[in-house]
Amino acid sequence: MIQTEDFKSIIDQYKVIFFDAFGVIKNYKGMVPGMDETFAYLRATGKEYYIVTNDASRSPKQLAASFNKLGLDITPDRIISSGMLAKEYLDLKVNEGIVAYLGTANSAHYIDYSGLHTLPVSAIDESNIDQVNALVFLDDEGFDWFRDLNKTVNILRRRNIPTIVANTDYAYPLNTQDVAIAIGGIASMIHQIVGKRFINFGKPDSLMFTFAYDQVRKTNPSIGKKDILMIGDTLQTDILGGNKFGLDTMLVFTGNTLPTDAETRITSSGIVPTYICEKAVIG
Amino acid sequence: MIQTEDFKSIIDQYKVIFFDAFGVIKNYKGMVPGMDETFAYLRATGKEYYIVTNDASRSPKQLAASFNKLGLDITPDRIISSGMLAKEYLDLKVNEGIVAYLGTANSAHYIDYSGLHTLPVSAIDESNIDQVNALVFLDDEGFDWFRDLNKTVNILRRRNIPTIVANTDYAYPLNTQDVAIAIGGIASMIHQIVGKRFINFGKPDSLMFTFAYDQVRKTNPSIGKKDILMIGDTLQTDILGGNKFGLDTMLVFTGNTLPTDAETRITSSGIVPTYICEKAVIG
Amino acid sequence: MIQTEDFKSIIDQYKVIFFDAFGVIKNYKGMVPGMDETFAYLRATGKEYYIVTNDASRSPKQLAASFNKLGLDITPDRIISSGMLAKEYLDLKVNEGIVAYLGTANSAHYIDYSGLHTLPVSAIDESNIDQVNALVFLDDEGFDWFRDLNKTVNILRRRNIPTIVANTDYAYPLNTQDVAIAIGGIASMIHQIVGKRFINFGKPDSLMFTFAYDQVRKTNPSIGKKDILMIGDTLQTDILGGNKFGLDTMLVFTGNTLPTDAETRITSSGIVPTYICEKAVIG
Amino acid sequence: MIQTEDFKSIIDQYKVIFFDAFGVIKNYKGMVPGMDETFAYLRATGKEYYIVTNDASRSPKQLAASFNKLGLDITPDRIISSGMLAKEYLDLKVNEGIVAYLGTANSAHYIDYSGLHTLPVSAIDESNIDQVNALVFLDDEGFDWFRDLNKTVNILRRRNIPTIVANTDYAYPLNTQDVAIAIGGIASMIHQIVGKRFINFGKPDSLMFTFAYDQVRKTNPSIGKKDILMIGDTLQTDILGGNKFGLDTMLVFTGNTLPTDAETRITSSGIVPTYICEKAVIG
Repeated sequence: MIQTEDFKSIIDQYKVIFFDAFGVIKNYKGMVPGMDETFAYLRATGKEYYIVTNDASRSPKQLAASFNKLGLDITPDRIISSGMLAKEYLDLKVNEGIVAYLGTANSAHYIDYSGLHTLPVSAIDESNIDQVNALVFLDDEGFDWFRDLNKTVNILRRRNIPTIVANTDYAYPLNTQDVAIAIGGIASMIHQIVGKRFINFGKPDSLMFTFAYDQVRKTNPSIGKKDILMIGDTLQTDILGGNKFGLDTMLVFTGNTLPTDAETRITSSGIVPTYICEKAVIG
Repeated sequence: MIQTEDFKSIIDQYKVIFFDAFGVIKNYKGMVPGMDETFAYLRATGKEYYIVTNDASRSPKQLAASFNKLGLDITPDRIISSGMLAKEYLDLKVNEGIVAYLGTANSAHYIDYSGLHTLPVSAIDESNIDQVNALVFLDDEGFDWFRDLNKTVNILRRRNIPTIVANTDYAYPLNTQDVAIAIGGIASMIHQIVGKRFINFGKPDSLMFTFAYDQVRKTNPSIGKKDILMIGDTLQTDILGGNKFGLDTMLVFTGNTLPTDAETRITSSGIVPTYICEKAVIG
Repeated sequence: MIQTEDFKSIIDQYKVIFFDAFGVIKNYKGMVPGMDETFAYLRATGKEYYIVTNDASRSPKQLAASFNKLGLDITPDRIISSGMLAKEYLDLKVNEGIVAYLGTANSAHYIDYSGLHTLPVSAIDESNIDQVNALVFLDDEGFDWFRDLNKTVNILRRRNIPTIVANTDYAYPLNTQDVAIAIGGIASMIHQIVGKRFINFGKPDSLMFTFAYDQVRKTNPSIGKKDILMIGDTLQTDILGGNKFGLDTMLVFTGNTLPTDAETRITSSGIVPTYICEKAVIG
Repeated sequence: MIQTEDFKSIIDQYKVIFFDAFGVIKNYKGMVPGMDETFAYLRATGKEYYIVTNDASRSPKQLAASFNKLGLDITPDRIISSGMLAKEYLDLKVNEGIVAYLGTANSAHYIDYSGLHTLPVSAIDESNIDQVNALVFLDDEGFDWFRDLNKTVNILRRRNIPTIVANTDYAYPLNTQDVAIAIGGIASMIHQIVGKRFINFGKPDSLMFTFAYDQVRKTNPSIGKKDILMIGDTLQTDILGGNKFGLDTMLVFTGNTLPTDAETRITSSGIVPTYICEKAVIG
């Protein structure tokens, strides 16, 4: 079993903490016990914190509400999601027409904005396909897989348009034993069939970290990358992305990585966290 | 536009012809006009022929019946399908327990045999999962994609069993414009999520050609690879596989490859057919 | 042949221009004729410009000197190279020990800095391998491929260290007809053999654009992404990366992409530039 | 540590044994101790055996000679190598012109035959490039990597010809600690740069097993796949390929796979051998 370190003595060395959401703050059982004290400590010691999450199924406001329900007082301005990158992309690059999406109406409401119609893939037909100027993979729920995945393939064969994957995770855990296919896994299949490049947002991609880092510097321009610690449960997203962006990183065992697997996975992937702690909890 | 050659003068040089089914003999419009005369000519001149198809959704008997309906007198013993390879694999390597499958009941009936229970993925639960000793991807129809693909992922996470892909095609054409996602595309997504090696049957894999070649030599042991011509509409399966097995190959334009694209595709893929003809039709 | 637009009327709409170096400003024949007038026009109209290049073989100072030789007055502070990202990574994340590299002594001089020894892979042996804390792929020249690529594989098998690819291009053009294997192609081979994740810098990765965008905003904080145009000759790096970062993009025909290929490549890749011009030259 | 079984009681159940060469019969230390007794036992009990090896650097005759030097009486007709498949391909499919190769003169001598000139890549120039009708990756030695790999890329850009990889292994062990890059790793890099499909021979591809199986049935037509056991040290080649071909398989620990790794590798790859033994040695 790999050696872990003391959480408190590590975070005392940093001014800003980035947390992954699922597997660090909460998991399928609910809030990781003790997280409320961790956030209380951060506030008491004047440290900044942000939640940096590959979640495109809900808006920052909705994500904050879900934390509040668990008893954590986290405000929407503390949340950086891959869905926010998808939204920024559409704002900057798609000026007119229809944005087709796969996901729930709720997830689409979030990327909706003036000037563009947002329509589920199921609502695209011969009458409007020529106005589709972007397609977004948002969530694995809210549509009929057989009908709408086949439809998506054919839309992308006929329209040469930007295709955005707002969450690149292939699967997410449902309980100790089972996982569910995530929208990133579905997008990868469609990509292989149509052969075109998709625009992938979400960790480990640097844009997530750039977005969060810009947010930090807006309120405190003197913060440098050396002052920030990224905490995550997944080597391939949180740790790889944090390392590449130049941050120190911490792996925790409350999510995807088990204490018994950690050493093998670190050695075989070559992705080495700066620290390893059992959980992001003080004491 | 790429130069084509005269079909009849080419086949006159060979003793045995292997035909791909979809895109050569038939397409979404029905039988390719003139194919009946092609087969009449082959019989008249004493040439052997086999249909070599990446189709695991039906048995050779059912496939032959579908040709008969189109007015082509093709017998089941002339048909080599990737489903036959899946069946042989199960016969040789899986001696007991349950074979779970994705596909129609019809496709499963074909691989069913004494000693093994064949059950759809939807019928696997806690009571029988420990008896599942193989899983087969057969057809893109006959199951609920959302429920059963998620279930498949979790079966493969819990059982370290051989997983067979009986048709590796990613998509198939529905009409001039649209395609449908094939079971090979779905299998590729599941493979990426669970990370395990699957056993893929079907062209371009050599086993398909070995199977067909063995069949040829059973009736005529003097036939060599030089005597056989493989005719197909797809560079990545028919032509690549035929070339690698050591056969001469012919590309036709009645299916996946258009005359306008052929040159670009051949150059960019490096897959060069021995001949190019408009269609596998005499005169 | 695809339709092109008038260069001057496009750049008049932007405040900042990002140029790829090779294939846009210069190519194997030397400076693209007319580029001096383009830069004179930018200066006369008060537009900012930056060279954003996947070149890790030389420092910004050396790159500027090479432009000066061609008659272009470009200063080092205008140059953003993937080598700068490699240097920043080492500054932030590798505090002690040896950085081993593949490349010329010249390319290594650039990443050299206080506190770290920079040594070519050829100088690593049993006496110092345990102090190697990072390995950088810098340039395809300056080492014996057979000896040092084999050595690199074995260093990476024994040391679980960050491995940086400072230029991810697989090949670069030597003349109209021939290309040379680039260090990115070599790194990809080593990656497949050792199986570990490497840290890749260079377009299309967003960090290159973040770096350049930060530079722009240091001198002019009011500039937004909408004010910037990225000009490049390669769909997979310049255009894909620029699009994803949220910039408008222009494809030119003075490098990797030919006017005769452009349409096919855009359609098959799904990477669509905002504009297409013959060259980045006025009048 | 994974449980192993008794070697003798397993092979007693089979009529024919296929052995991988490197890692089973010999390794970097020389012959695996006791192999001479294994072969004596096979002869005494009338069992057939074949060496099925991904080695294209030498002819069966030379390979047999190398076994004889180690004290093993193995005749050339017992050896099936991936080089034999490359040779068969050239015999069937390339009728005239030059076959260019990467490897030693010795490896090329083997594929040389009447009607074709075999020339090293280094001997190809403007005067003869138009006659090059195939290119073969044979061995990682015998050429200047920098000069000849760059040349190979440019030959394949100009000539749309079949490209054969006669050994798909990426690396091979030199001693307990170090490996060497194999010609399959080099071929994979060149493939990524030129983007064309190569023709790969060697395990796990079925053609190797078809070739060996045909050999078996020539002398004894009553042998079926159930009568054959494939013994190898590598999951991804010997075991995967053997399983797919329908053979029972045995993993041994005298080569690439260590007893401490075996369970993790089997679970993560999903490649399950029928048996696991410490070594292919009796008693």
